[in-house]
Amino acid sequence: MLKGKSLIDPMDFSKEELEEIFALADKIIENPREYAHAADGKILATLFYEPSTRTRFSFEAAMLRLGGKVIGFSEPNSTSVSKGETIADTIRIVSCYADIVAMRHPKEGAPKIASMYSEIPVINAGDGGHQHPTQTLTDLLTISKIKGKLSNLTIGMCGDLKFGRTVHSLIKALSRYENNKIILISPDELKVPDYIKKGILDKNNIEYEEVKRIEDVIESLDVLYMTRVQKERFFNEEDYIRLKDSYILDKNKLSKAKDDMIILHPLPRVNEISYDIDSDKRACYFKQAKFGMYVRMALMAKLMGVL
Amino acid sequence: MLKGKSLIDPMDFSKEELEEIFALADKIIENPREYAHAADGKILATLFYEPSTRTRFSFEAAMLRLGGKVIGFSEPNSTSVSKGETIADTIRIVSCYADIVAMRHPKEGAPKIASMYSEIPVINAGDGGHQHPTQTLTDLLTISKIKGKLSNLTIGMCGDLKFGRTVHSLIKALSRYENNKIILISPDELKVPDYIKKGILDKNNIEYEEVKRIEDVIESLDVLYMTRVQKERFFNEEDYIRLKDSYILDKNKLSKAKDDMIILHPLPRVNEISYDIDSDKRACYFKQAKFGMYVRMALMAKLMGVL
Amino acid sequence: MLKGKSLIDPMDFSKEELEEIFALADKIIENPREYAHAADGKILATLFYEPSTRTRFSFEAAMLRLGGKVIGFSEPNSTSVSKGETIADTIRIVSCYADIVAMRHPKEGAPKIASMYSEIPVINAGDGGHQHPTQTLTDLLTISKIKGKLSNLTIGMCGDLKFGRTVHSLIKALSRYENNKIILISPDELKVPDYIKKGILDKNNIEYEEVKRIEDVIESLDVLYMTRVQKERFFNEEDYIRLKDSYILDKNKLSKAKDDMIILHPLPRVNEISYDIDSDKRACYFKQAKFGMYVRMALMAKLMGVL
Repeated sequence: MLKGKSLIDPMDFSKEELEEIFALADKIIENPREYAHAADGKILATLFYEPSTRTRFSFEAAMLRLGGKVIGFSEPNSTSVSKGETIADTIRIVSCYADIVAMRHPKEGAPKIASMYSEIPVINAGDGGHQHPTQTLTDLLTISKIKGKLSNLTIGMCGDLKFGRTVHSLIKALSRYENNKIILISPDELKVPDYIKKGILDKNNIEYEEVKRIEDVIESLDVLYMTRVQKERFFNEEDYIRLKDSYILDKNKLSKAKDDMIILHPLPRVNEISYDIDSDKRACYFKQAKFGMYVRMALMAKLMGVL
Repeated sequence: MLKGKSLIDPMDFSKEELEEIFALADKIIENPREYAHAADGKILATLFYEPSTRTRFSFEAAMLRLGGKVIGFSEPNSTSVSKGETIADTIRIVSCYADIVAMRHPKEGAPKIASMYSEIPVINAGDGGHQHPTQTLTDLLTISKIKGKLSNLTIGMCGDLKFGRTVHSLIKALSRYENNKIILISPDELKVPDYIKKGILDKNNIEYEEVKRIEDVIESLDVLYMTRVQKERFFNEEDYIRLKDSYILDKNKLSKAKDDMIILHPLPRVNEISYDIDSDKRACYFKQAKFGMYVRMALMAKLMGVL
Repeated sequence: MLKGKSLIDPMDFSKEELEEIFALADKIIENPREYAHAADGKILATLFYEPSTRTRFSFEAAMLRLGGKVIGFSEPNSTSVSKGETIADTIRIVSCYADIVAMRHPKEGAPKIASMYSEIPVINAGDGGHQHPTQTLTDLLTISKIKGKLSNLTIGMCGDLKFGRTVHSLIKALSRYENNKIILISPDELKVPDYIKKGILDKNNIEYEEVKRIEDVIESLDVLYMTRVQKERFFNEEDYIRLKDSYILDKNKLSKAKDDMIILHPLPRVNEISYDIDSDKRACYFKQAKFGMYVRMALMAKLMGVL
């Protein structure tokens, strides 16, 4: 039973609970009109203590497409935080007005605290560099929908694997499924931290490999998950210039990939995927954004208990 | 008939008109689903020239829960004010788009001016330190709902009674009901101004008393209305340190109160009510926030003439 | 067929397409309730990269009055632009969530680029000093509704005719109708540019005249279209002081006008129309704002293909 629960950490739900959400998302994708009034009379509060237009739009469109309505703010300065109110008080008041909350906050743990005092479900829409569980749900649904499975896959993750929270969460999530192989593609400076390698991959007996160049491994991949590589994360300019091209996906590198490999990206991209790849059938990142809306529809419907 | 009227000052409506609003609020609280389409097709414009998330959420949730919709802004800089347009012109244009307006403005009197030029009802959602009539409606409905009456009560008001507009409005409003006794609890620096004492309390033969410490009077109270005491309002640091604890409600002070006393607060609170009181059944300030939404539903429905 | 089209330039649509929109607007004005669910389940995204409350309200109220819903932002800083995303990527993601977009952007051409990458109709809600096509539609509908025709009219345009994009667009639009005479009323510094006079008026054999004072021509006008004259546009203070009164419409100047002349203004006004004219039956600028909402309802319904 998901009704009444909050979603703070991508691992909060069991595989079975995720299956329940994905199954509903699947039905909504098949026949969205049938769900256009599922949340009639319900209100989502989007509490965005830092701006994130894309994520906010996804939540709001999801609620509206279920027939619900939205109140919210998208900037910290339009809130009562400046008057010294605690998160605990804020969420209790919002609980008076809304039926579910999506909270984005620059401080790690803020949505967790909110969920402890809330009378309604709280969804973590990103807390600092910490967690962004609906992105993980989006990633899993997208892989599952397009590849037809979440196991027996070779998944490349490319870019900033040190600070990228979406990558860490996706590794954790995939480690619950069988027989996946994970290829970690990054410069030395941006490798996956040890607590992920030892604490998650080794502990769950997940096969993995660390490499430095997309071109060396792309032919083996079923999924290529791209992320941004930010210049300021490198120790020196020289390394950055030497390495950066290895983390940009272009037509040349893509030419070696399997015909049914899929390219994902949490977006926004800056230049790490060339624009001429957008029309390639393997480019699934905009489709992924759409699945993000559907999975949020399913998630909110389940947490509110309306479906 | 409330249809078409504006609400600018808490005393704009007669006791009978307030009764009409409270009676409707009561019905909505009993059976909210029955009113979920009362304002179908109607639009509320929230014109917030200064941010006040809590008040805005309350109005917006109220309209949405009546089946209506919302347009608005929550910050002054996103408006046309910077282009030099008058309030009169702004409200006439908004009258083209919306069916009712809730206006928050840092300048006293701005909502009054708006109501003079508007073709649709204008509700003052707070104008500077001046008026905030829907807070008064909220306070009255809360007392009436929980205590079952608005007369024959001993009501303590504690904190900054000099600048607190909610306190002044509540005193005015309560002075229309019979046989109430008002206990004013504040430091000398923050006592209720003479124009309230002479112009309202004395004039209406309301019994009242001025004291300096909660603990001296709490046992006699039916209602304790708490407000914030801001350090910067004191003349000197010494006085503040000496006095501040007398204006913080804690378990110890509360232990002397009647079993059915209710604690109200317009919120946000900072530290004037200890958090460990929140679970006490006498703590009614979050319930009060919820009543605030219901009374705004009733108010808007009446002013739009849909109920 | 307008379904699926974007509106970027006021001249994008043929006269016949405009007629189709105006005919629908007409029906909506006659019986708005009949259209209250025409866009049920549809979502408008208002992407306002610069604030324009009036235009945003008009679009949002239009969508809500068709039964649709709205997501959006009203300020550039709450967007993902700061993360370096292109307009092309932004619009492709918004295409996942919404059914139609209204975009306001400080840079000329931004809505055009958006429309090239969008999977849903894009409406230019103003791009810098460039185009503002829904204002032109508003102006045309207003003239057509009140005067009963868009031809055989003598139309005065007054104020800043050099930089005023609404005036340029209206000239272009009116040049497609027969037998209109256009009177251009402005100081030398703010005359209509040559590319409009030669490229539009002369080319289409439109009779026109350039004058400096409202009072010299007002008696001949069927329509007087007022715009703001900004002090900073003058070359020197002396000229400004000498000329400014000629561009302020007051009761005295209006006394010479025909009884059925109509006064329009794209709003906001500052002081170029005296407030004591507002109650004159010839003052149609607030009515114009209302028609602006109706024409946007018709436009969006046609572009989404729901009517």
